[in-house]
Amino acid sequence: MPPKIYLAGPEVFLPDAVAIGRQKVAICARFGLLGLFPIDLGDGAAGPATSGAIFQACLAAMREADAVIANLTPFRGVGADPGTAFELGYMVALGKPVFGYSNDPVPHVERVRSGYGPLRTDGDQLFAADGLAVENFALFDNLMLAEGLRAGGRGGVFLPAAPVADPARDLMTFARCAEHASEVLEAIRQA
Amino acid sequence: MPPKIYLAGPEVFLPDAVAIGRQKVAICARFGLLGLFPIDLGDGAAGPATSGAIFQACLAAMREADAVIANLTPFRGVGADPGTAFELGYMVALGKPVFGYSNDPVPHVERVRSGYGPLRTDGDQLFAADGLAVENFALFDNLMLAEGLRAGGRGGVFLPAAPVADPARDLMTFARCAEHASEVLEAIRQA
Repeated sequence: MPPKIYLAGPEVFLPDAVAIGRQKVAICARFGLLGLFPIDLGDGAAGPATSGAIFQACLAAMREADAVIANLTPFRGVGADPGTAFELGYMVALGKPVFGYSNDPVPHVERVRSGYGPLRTDGDQLFAADGLAVENFALFDNLMLAEGLRAGGRGGVFLPAAPVADPARDLMTFARCAEHASEVLEAIRQA
Repeated sequence: MPPKIYLAGPEVFLPDAVAIGRQKVAICARFGLLGLFPIDLGDGAAGPATSGAIFQACLAAMREADAVIANLTPFRGVGADPGTAFELGYMVALGKPVFGYSNDPVPHVERVRSGYGPLRTDGDQLFAADGLAVENFALFDNLMLAEGLRAGGRGGVFLPAAPVADPARDLMTFARCAEHASEVLEAIRQA
């Protein structure tokens, strides 16, 4: 039985979400993983799903999964989709291996500078022009996400080496992350 | 021993975060709760904390806490702070009661319309001008957050009746949420 990977990410909001999900599942299969894509979790009932039913289906899939690969590419703002962040936290609490990537190689501080700059320092802290502090840790996003991916010594977030043309759809970095997840899960299995 | 409440939220990024934290802890005390504010979790070591140390301190506090009150007020964009969303998911997975509020009474769909509109429908789905779907469930934010707060029948998100002057600092809705949390935790204790 291949390890099951919950595929968290805001690609569920793309008009071609079903096609992207199939591509992610195919990439998983190439590395011996069974991808669970949220949009495929419907109960087969007629009519649009309720938010409560979608929530319960996602929770059930996460409990069934052996690990998660979270797409933490910024979504409508400077940071990750909060739904995906919720799911990453959920899987960390379950003690399951978590993997993640972002298709935006720009550090969090630089994204905040672009959107809410200029930045200024005050003592130890860095502030944006919105008057709010910016975590100044050279991480890709909020430290809970970045450190959540580092915990367990699994190497942290995967990023492209350079900006990609279509960050919402690009799957190169996802594929690298899936290969890494496969290796880690195989090492755990053999341990 | 009063129930311990982890106080998740982006107010840690305010320049007056320490003062806001003290006010939140004082409001908790008024309702018989012991508030754990992330910024107070330092290990007392000299110098600025590392992101890894902050992460581990937050996880330890969440495991120690009996419940969480999450501030899900939008942060630098249309949705909640991803770090807070991570923590909400973490506490849901631990099976602890979760409570939450937002100081923005505007539904998620309307915030997306303001920032990324106009909206258009395509079949069952609603899309913003950025080409991405918008969850059309009349919820305050992403369904994982909204349903996470509803799970367990604890009533969902607390919102102000009308826009507030300073959403980053207003504590009226937090106080209502803390009072509710106190009642729920007392009922659980007596059950």
